[in-house]
Amino acid sequence: MTYMEGRAEPSQETAALDLFDHTRARSMALVAPLNDEDMGLQSMEDASPPKWHLAHTTWFFEEFILKPSLPGYQPRDDRFALLFNSYYVQAGPRHTRSKRGLLSRPAVPDVMAYRSHVEDALREGVARDAFTLDRDELEALITLGCHHEMQHQELLVTDLLHAFSYNPLLPAYTDAKPATVSEVREPGWTSHDGGLVEIGHDGTGFAYDCEGPRHKVWLEPYMLCDRPVTNGEWIAFMEDGGYETQPLWLMEGWAVREKNGWDSPLYWWKQDGTWWTYSLKGPHPVDLSAPVVHVSYYEADAFARWAGCRLPTEAEWEAAAEQTPIEGNFMDHGALVPVGRRTGLWGDVWQWTSSAFSPYPGFRPPEGAIGEYNGKFMVNQMVLRGGSCATPKLQMRPSYRTFFYPHQRWQMLGLRLAGDK
Amino acid sequence: MTYMEGRAEPSQETAALDLFDHTRARSMALVAPLNDEDMGLQSMEDASPPKWHLAHTTWFFEEFILKPSLPGYQPRDDRFALLFNSYYVQAGPRHTRSKRGLLSRPAVPDVMAYRSHVEDALREGVARDAFTLDRDELEALITLGCHHEMQHQELLVTDLLHAFSYNPLLPAYTDAKPATVSEVREPGWTSHDGGLVEIGHDGTGFAYDCEGPRHKVWLEPYMLCDRPVTNGEWIAFMEDGGYETQPLWLMEGWAVREKNGWDSPLYWWKQDGTWWTYSLKGPHPVDLSAPVVHVSYYEADAFARWAGCRLPTEAEWEAAAEQTPIEGNFMDHGALVPVGRRTGLWGDVWQWTSSAFSPYPGFRPPEGAIGEYNGKFMVNQMVLRGGSCATPKLQMRPSYRTFFYPHQRWQMLGLRLAGDK
Amino acid sequence: MTYMEGRAEPSQETAALDLFDHTRARSMALVAPLNDEDMGLQSMEDASPPKWHLAHTTWFFEEFILKPSLPGYQPRDDRFALLFNSYYVQAGPRHTRSKRGLLSRPAVPDVMAYRSHVEDALREGVARDAFTLDRDELEALITLGCHHEMQHQELLVTDLLHAFSYNPLLPAYTDAKPATVSEVREPGWTSHDGGLVEIGHDGTGFAYDCEGPRHKVWLEPYMLCDRPVTNGEWIAFMEDGGYETQPLWLMEGWAVREKNGWDSPLYWWKQDGTWWTYSLKGPHPVDLSAPVVHVSYYEADAFARWAGCRLPTEAEWEAAAEQTPIEGNFMDHGALVPVGRRTGLWGDVWQWTSSAFSPYPGFRPPEGAIGEYNGKFMVNQMVLRGGSCATPKLQMRPSYRTFFYPHQRWQMLGLRLAGDK
Amino acid sequence: MTYMEGRAEPSQETAALDLFDHTRARSMALVAPLNDEDMGLQSMEDASPPKWHLAHTTWFFEEFILKPSLPGYQPRDDRFALLFNSYYVQAGPRHTRSKRGLLSRPAVPDVMAYRSHVEDALREGVARDAFTLDRDELEALITLGCHHEMQHQELLVTDLLHAFSYNPLLPAYTDAKPATVSEVREPGWTSHDGGLVEIGHDGTGFAYDCEGPRHKVWLEPYMLCDRPVTNGEWIAFMEDGGYETQPLWLMEGWAVREKNGWDSPLYWWKQDGTWWTYSLKGPHPVDLSAPVVHVSYYEADAFARWAGCRLPTEAEWEAAAEQTPIEGNFMDHGALVPVGRRTGLWGDVWQWTSSAFSPYPGFRPPEGAIGEYNGKFMVNQMVLRGGSCATPKLQMRPSYRTFFYPHQRWQMLGLRLAGDK
Repeated sequence: MTYMEGRAEPSQETAALDLFDHTRARSMALVAPLNDEDMGLQSMEDASPPKWHLAHTTWFFEEFILKPSLPGYQPRDDRFALLFNSYYVQAGPRHTRSKRGLLSRPAVPDVMAYRSHVEDALREGVARDAFTLDRDELEALITLGCHHEMQHQELLVTDLLHAFSYNPLLPAYTDAKPATVSEVREPGWTSHDGGLVEIGHDGTGFAYDCEGPRHKVWLEPYMLCDRPVTNGEWIAFMEDGGYETQPLWLMEGWAVREKNGWDSPLYWWKQDGTWWTYSLKGPHPVDLSAPVVHVSYYEADAFARWAGCRLPTEAEWEAAAEQTPIEGNFMDHGALVPVGRRTGLWGDVWQWTSSAFSPYPGFRPPEGAIGEYNGKFMVNQMVLRGGSCATPKLQMRPSYRTFFYPHQRWQMLGLRLAGDK
Repeated sequence: MTYMEGRAEPSQETAALDLFDHTRARSMALVAPLNDEDMGLQSMEDASPPKWHLAHTTWFFEEFILKPSLPGYQPRDDRFALLFNSYYVQAGPRHTRSKRGLLSRPAVPDVMAYRSHVEDALREGVARDAFTLDRDELEALITLGCHHEMQHQELLVTDLLHAFSYNPLLPAYTDAKPATVSEVREPGWTSHDGGLVEIGHDGTGFAYDCEGPRHKVWLEPYMLCDRPVTNGEWIAFMEDGGYETQPLWLMEGWAVREKNGWDSPLYWWKQDGTWWTYSLKGPHPVDLSAPVVHVSYYEADAFARWAGCRLPTEAEWEAAAEQTPIEGNFMDHGALVPVGRRTGLWGDVWQWTSSAFSPYPGFRPPEGAIGEYNGKFMVNQMVLRGGSCATPKLQMRPSYRTFFYPHQRWQMLGLRLAGDK
Repeated sequence: MTYMEGRAEPSQETAALDLFDHTRARSMALVAPLNDEDMGLQSMEDASPPKWHLAHTTWFFEEFILKPSLPGYQPRDDRFALLFNSYYVQAGPRHTRSKRGLLSRPAVPDVMAYRSHVEDALREGVARDAFTLDRDELEALITLGCHHEMQHQELLVTDLLHAFSYNPLLPAYTDAKPATVSEVREPGWTSHDGGLVEIGHDGTGFAYDCEGPRHKVWLEPYMLCDRPVTNGEWIAFMEDGGYETQPLWLMEGWAVREKNGWDSPLYWWKQDGTWWTYSLKGPHPVDLSAPVVHVSYYEADAFARWAGCRLPTEAEWEAAAEQTPIEGNFMDHGALVPVGRRTGLWGDVWQWTSSAFSPYPGFRPPEGAIGEYNGKFMVNQMVLRGGSCATPKLQMRPSYRTFFYPHQRWQMLGLRLAGDK
Repeated sequence: MTYMEGRAEPSQETAALDLFDHTRARSMALVAPLNDEDMGLQSMEDASPPKWHLAHTTWFFEEFILKPSLPGYQPRDDRFALLFNSYYVQAGPRHTRSKRGLLSRPAVPDVMAYRSHVEDALREGVARDAFTLDRDELEALITLGCHHEMQHQELLVTDLLHAFSYNPLLPAYTDAKPATVSEVREPGWTSHDGGLVEIGHDGTGFAYDCEGPRHKVWLEPYMLCDRPVTNGEWIAFMEDGGYETQPLWLMEGWAVREKNGWDSPLYWWKQDGTWWTYSLKGPHPVDLSAPVVHVSYYEADAFARWAGCRLPTEAEWEAAAEQTPIEGNFMDHGALVPVGRRTGLWGDVWQWTSSAFSPYPGFRPPEGAIGEYNGKFMVNQMVLRGGSCATPKLQMRPSYRTFFYPHQRWQMLGLRLAGDK
């Protein structure tokens, strides 16, 4: 992973076009280790091929900026609108999501050319000041497109890991050796008074619609563990019969567990008495001191019950995060696996909260297709917080909410314990 | 429906044993119109046969009161523990839920004898003061068993309606004629200041574990409609293309709608230009002024969006309900269909809220099998409030929470609109 | 089982009306041990409730004889045509097959009255000579209706066994004790020359359309075992790893076996080191000398391969059967379980052949709905021969073909080995 | 398609090694138009990626010839045995069939190197006379491997067509223009006396095990149409309501049709009043005079009934084919779509027969994994005869049997009518 070398790292203050350059370059760097066949892999409906991520993030700029606001813009291929729209109903019809892995055409070089075509048009349009939008609106949309692409960068590597996991050769995405197994640090706890606090984004700087409005929430006093649950702790749970003890589980979680035969996190297996895992570094023994990853909400919830604790709410997490610097193991670090060994709330693994993904009081999605970004997913999904080893750091804010279904495990999903004071 | 005739109506203050007599008698009254074959019908895994409801509610008293606390108690049949446990894992193995409709044995007379056996043992044990529990604990458990049976009374009639709906003869459970179509009243709105309020049960009198602890919640100012959405309004939504307009729907709701071909509430069909429905009164034209019923969360949410409103949160509903007398069309009224035509928050139809069913701050389920009553369902379900035409009135409290999956429609589920001030 | 007592047993020469009386009475005798709830049980789409069998066989006489050919006939209830048509497309729409178990109405007494209504009309019409058919045609149709009802008599008891098997109480349909375990007789073999033989029904007396035309078939010399495979032999197969040895199995059979977790015949389980089974006599140890029953084609085929033999073709079986008296353990015997212990080709268990159910050369189904009786099932099903302990003896002819899907097991299905000379 | 240019066409007498050269070269020619991403496409479990076909046919030579019989042979990669075994249980474990499309590694160049490795070893082993088999056995196995690869050549292009059909761009595999719509020739009929005939392979020259032994069959006199059913005739069937007329259909076929919404052959759609189809030449209007292709057995059977005819049995077809020269539109012709316009029994489309795929009298599969080639598929599949526009001509013999499930349509499957004399 050398895509950061020699580049100034962007920050929240980076101008939109610099962010654009940086983001587009990183996407290219992420696919550098892949061959053309890897670029087309799709292992399930929830996941998409690397090539599709490259094209869809390009389509986003084309559809929401170039087509409506750059007079004279000519798409490279009119048919790409159908192929690379994901779920924006108001932006027109879409190709079947589960069949993205069958799009061998347009081929990889055509998609690369599509990327260049859109990038050139956008940069040139900016240079010529040719957009029909005022500068602030334009920069806001470019910034949105970059954040959108950053989300897809995380998906790109986690989707790829999932697809690779079906290959008995278990390819390594990156040759970097995983860290050796280190000693395990006992967890500590931080104490929080709660009371009437405010959470949510206040509108300064970039944020997704669902992060606001900023609003009051009452919190009882609470405790947070100062690091995520580790693999070593997870193995203790497993060895204590956690996966076989029904009263620890939500009714629905137990049914999912039984149906799928879960007895460990995703990508784990036992080999000669040792737990192994498959990560972007290939197969290797489980690092006992690293945060556990690839666990569902059902498993996280059962673990917390077994530990005599609970998961935090997203408000508890966010109130604490506003006091905590955003430092941790993000995609920029290049490890691409959880490493752990530090305190703080951020990085390594997304942390399941006990909060369903719901609208904040006064939430109103914007008009048009852009308004479909988050709002239409507000049922049956749970919020996770904190970012992971595959999250671009620049995405992170205390108010950032991601969300997945309780049964999903293929993302970098882990947990942090909480408790009442 | 004459099961209330000549009886003193119980209230929240009714002594446990009087409540027991009342509740057990009402269950028997509810099955009076049924033949033995009706008693065994099960149309889906979510539903159970009337006979099973009668037996399971009896098993509850036997398992949680008689067996552990009445020395010398002899079960009528040891095998019933397996047959009539629903989902209490810690109370032992259970018969397959989806196969309850195949239990032609024990036959109806055997189940009736089982009911008598348990009732006699309980009453006699109370008379002899033979329980190993102290009186308060015993009364609390009897009361819990009665409230449990009341929940099953509602399920009994709604499950039966679902099973009957597969019979082309569309039998009427009750001969009572449905009300004639009346004029539709325009909705009004009530205004609420919000602020830092308290909700949840305070521990005085009976409540389920999930209703507490009482706790603070911050509410922004809000409005509530003074009646549920009516069939007439629902038809306006349908005629405006509500079922075909994807941007109105949650992503997941749209998929469910498509898969199931929904274009109207459950049990509706069009006949010679008029919408008809099937209810416990048999088939009849839709009453335009009555509250719409048998709609899923997905439909309710889409309707609210179409109407430019939203669904209330459960905290908004409860804060308002604490100010509102519990009066409305409940099971005791005998209509067994929504009637509407009155203001207030209660009765006719359960009202979908936008709140996922989650633990309140500080929630701890009790130890043992009883603790499985509610806690293990706290994922992916939505809270509904207010009780329906099939809910025994005595169950109702401002803090009462029921919960269903967003796709479920076979209960008496409707909606009330809310908005920001 | 006393329904045969004091009655003259009908034979192939019995007059149509006597056969009608006999057949209709036997159906009633078969349901005598059942309560009203048993009468409505349906455990899968392939099976139907006892009550439905009683009504459907009645509908057959009404639909194909009374309605078209008895002037002035008034149906008891016009809606029964919808409810009790099985699969005759040309006879109008049908109720959903998988929902027959939800027809608690019409109730049992109504179905009994329906039976009487149709029987009275038919007998009276014959007495009055009021049919518009000539006598031969009328008798042929009545005979067809009786044979149809005999088929449903077998289904009635086997469907019931399947439904009862989901009840943990494992009810006994008949109290008769199963035979004690007897000594096992070594199998013998009969030798057959083959050559150019004729098979198929020649048109004399009753037969289904699919049994003809009579036609020539060339057979190589072959051997047939003189009794079906026994439970003892099946256990030897199991203990030799038959269910775990993939090369013994058809590709598709292995997949079905894995998906369903088959490791023994249907209704078998091991208890304290002994194999038990559930039959119409309730639960009891497996009788080692009795023919194995409730095995799929896939299992039968694997067993034959394990035994170094093969299954016979239906032509081989029929050519031999033309030389063999029709004697064996049929429904009339009253055992209702396979008993074995005799030579001959007939009775105890249907015997899977290696022949797919296909039309004979020159086969033409009759015009109209009656032509749907057999022809439209001629794909993907395998022929079985010989009749079982649940088959009325009167149905049996050398040319009789029954057919089931290779995965089906709930009928009285077993096997007989064959080999080349 | 130029892979035949300048090469002597092999015939049934071609020496094994020449056949090997020819066959291996053709596989490479077939993938010449594909990019690396095309090479990995798998659209359903029944189909495999082009790359997998290339590797699996190579594995076949390695597994059954090089490994057991060439002392000192070193596999290029031991892990390929797992990846490229298809269904030979006795040859060891296999990768999951439905996940072949996820094998981006080994990449295309690695598979090409694997092909060369095995080819070199085989040719060199022959040159050195180093095999432990005698020459006849070796040549027989090489020949089997070539015929096996020819079968996969047909699958390669038909599987690819299926995968491409999910791409809205509808890529053309070959640029060759489809023939223009020509005039339709009325069908003629050939008459056959039947009687006691012999069919099946007599053991002279190459054939698969399931084609023998040669054996006697009695045939009634019959007629065969002198060409396959055409697209024009199929449209007449469609316009006459063939797809909506249930009595034309087998019960099971109707259910499949309804479930899948079939109203035309696979890959057809209507555009501005004209029927279009998608073939290896891309999208184009349906050629009325060409044989219909991509129809299931259910559809073929319904069509024959609608036409007042029937499908032939495989014995009828084979008896006639023994009198007919093997000439027609095969893969070697290069059209890769049905063309029609000639009489004879061969080529253009595989023809559904009414015969289930069953063992011939005296059939014994060979010992070991090779014996799994055909025998284990002998249930629930129907025989097709005649070869198609995607079949290498060299595979064809009068006794050649292919077989598919009645619902399958993605192969080049059509039909020829038959009738009784």
